[in-house]
Amino acid sequence: MKRVVVIGGGTGNFVVLGGLKNFPVELSAIVSMADDGGSTGILRDELGVLPPGDVRQCLVALSHSSSVMRSLVNYRFENGGLGGHSFGNLLLSALEKVTGSFEKAVEEMGRMLLIKGNVIPVTTHQVRLKMLLNSQKVLEGEKEVYLSQEIDQGYESIYLQPHSNANPRAMEEIAKADLVVVGPGGLHTSLIPNFLVKGISESLKESKAKKIFVVNLMNRKGQTTGFKVSDYLKEIIPFIGGDLFDHILVNNQRPPEELIEIYAQEGTLVENDIKDSRVIETSLLGPLQEGHKHDLIKRNLIRHDSDKLAQELMKIVNHL
Amino acid sequence: MKRVVVIGGGTGNFVVLGGLKNFPVELSAIVSMADDGGSTGILRDELGVLPPGDVRQCLVALSHSSSVMRSLVNYRFENGGLGGHSFGNLLLSALEKVTGSFEKAVEEMGRMLLIKGNVIPVTTHQVRLKMLLNSQKVLEGEKEVYLSQEIDQGYESIYLQPHSNANPRAMEEIAKADLVVVGPGGLHTSLIPNFLVKGISESLKESKAKKIFVVNLMNRKGQTTGFKVSDYLKEIIPFIGGDLFDHILVNNQRPPEELIEIYAQEGTLVENDIKDSRVIETSLLGPLQEGHKHDLIKRNLIRHDSDKLAQELMKIVNHL
Repeated sequence: MKRVVVIGGGTGNFVVLGGLKNFPVELSAIVSMADDGGSTGILRDELGVLPPGDVRQCLVALSHSSSVMRSLVNYRFENGGLGGHSFGNLLLSALEKVTGSFEKAVEEMGRMLLIKGNVIPVTTHQVRLKMLLNSQKVLEGEKEVYLSQEIDQGYESIYLQPHSNANPRAMEEIAKADLVVVGPGGLHTSLIPNFLVKGISESLKESKAKKIFVVNLMNRKGQTTGFKVSDYLKEIIPFIGGDLFDHILVNNQRPPEELIEIYAQEGTLVENDIKDSRVIETSLLGPLQEGHKHDLIKRNLIRHDSDKLAQELMKIVNHL
Repeated sequence: MKRVVVIGGGTGNFVVLGGLKNFPVELSAIVSMADDGGSTGILRDELGVLPPGDVRQCLVALSHSSSVMRSLVNYRFENGGLGGHSFGNLLLSALEKVTGSFEKAVEEMGRMLLIKGNVIPVTTHQVRLKMLLNSQKVLEGEKEVYLSQEIDQGYESIYLQPHSNANPRAMEEIAKADLVVVGPGGLHTSLIPNFLVKGISESLKESKAKKIFVVNLMNRKGQTTGFKVSDYLKEIIPFIGGDLFDHILVNNQRPPEELIEIYAQEGTLVENDIKDSRVIETSLLGPLQEGHKHDLIKRNLIRHDSDKLAQELMKIVNHL
């Protein structure tokens, strides 16, 4: 079986993994450890654990367990001292305390969730994402970066503190991979943080795997304002240490105008301005879930379709 | 296989079940729903769930899962908003929210823990234990009853609010049982509350099962001060609606004097003052765990031995 490695964090990873798990490939998810918002941030601060949130999402994406088990892991407490905590985050953090190791905790939770594949934290060190803006303001932590509206005014540097080595297992998986998928996901918050860990870009460069970049559907105002496909590439390439991508996967299906309007305050559609042979343009849009329209947060309304994405990636795998 | 039902709550149940699970019997634990202290109390108040603590202990006692899984369920968070919560309590409460039913949650958690037997809440209604003392003071909740130092001055009534019906499954199990074990456990906090639920004493009276009362090792000062075996019986019989016990199991092994001294402030040894043929006197004391001496709370230093207790109970089962 071909080995596919998905690099990212957050909901982007979730969409890619959820589709690919239904195909006969050896899957590994390499997950950013920069998250420090919400429930995850509180657990980091109060318990000193590694950030569980993104790992939890990947585990659920790869899970073949009962729907009760998946609902449980995604359940959020609503009231009191537990309010806002995702149960899965508590599970992972308690397992880290009990086993004494974040990686063992991920493995144990993977067994409980009957996952297919591996979920690998990009580093097992406690790191904080920081960003020095052109304005000399420093954004402290992934949450501040995520919420900033000034990134499109330029930044001098983005870095992890302390500068940390990659998890050797992450480097091994990249080295052995047949296909590596980067994205979709928050450019500064979910994708780039993986390459700020020492050893990941080096492994990717040396790996014989085909490298695919899955471009986001939507820009984020104040962050990637007005970005086109070429801007995404220009932004990420310095962190990867070169334009290593064999294919660039781009959606070409236009969402309904009313949805684009709803989104207007948050950002615009990413337009494709590259026409070379490595660009694959196709319909990758998920169906609009009418019933859930008002429940979902806006940015989830226009999203990739797990199955379409997986099918395109499998076309590439099948040609290897 | 013979059917054995254990009625109680708290650590007493834990000791009986942990021993019996290694023998070929059909085990059911009927658990008091009066607990409202600590982590359990906070979850009841903040989330409106049924009390998870005693049920959690029974599930762990009956578990055949890995030691990691059992350590996880018993793990207590130490800091912040989660501080003091047992992970197993959070698991049970989250499952109750996700499945919409406390009983389904218990069943699901039983599957995760690979339990042998059934854990059955004595009622599925939200109840509070109350006690009207002779002094006319009302103790509100199991925690207040547990901490009271005035119960030995007499009380007018002990009751659940609201007065509630038993879980039909609890009544069925009692009806089908070959052996019913009551105790050991806190007399007013773990044992009597089961019989305050409408239907339990009626089922026990009608059941053809042999009924065994396992007498506590130690008295609690201010609660059962200076109680002998006959006092325990006199106290519990009115709630059961008659002296239904076929056997009374009493420890006759004296703990080391130094331990009795350590305990002196909390209470004294329960002496046996009944000599009729249904009293079984034997050594039921657990070994003193030297290494853990300072970690354990005092009342756990002098405790029943799971295996000795189970072996005595199995002698009775094997004569049925």
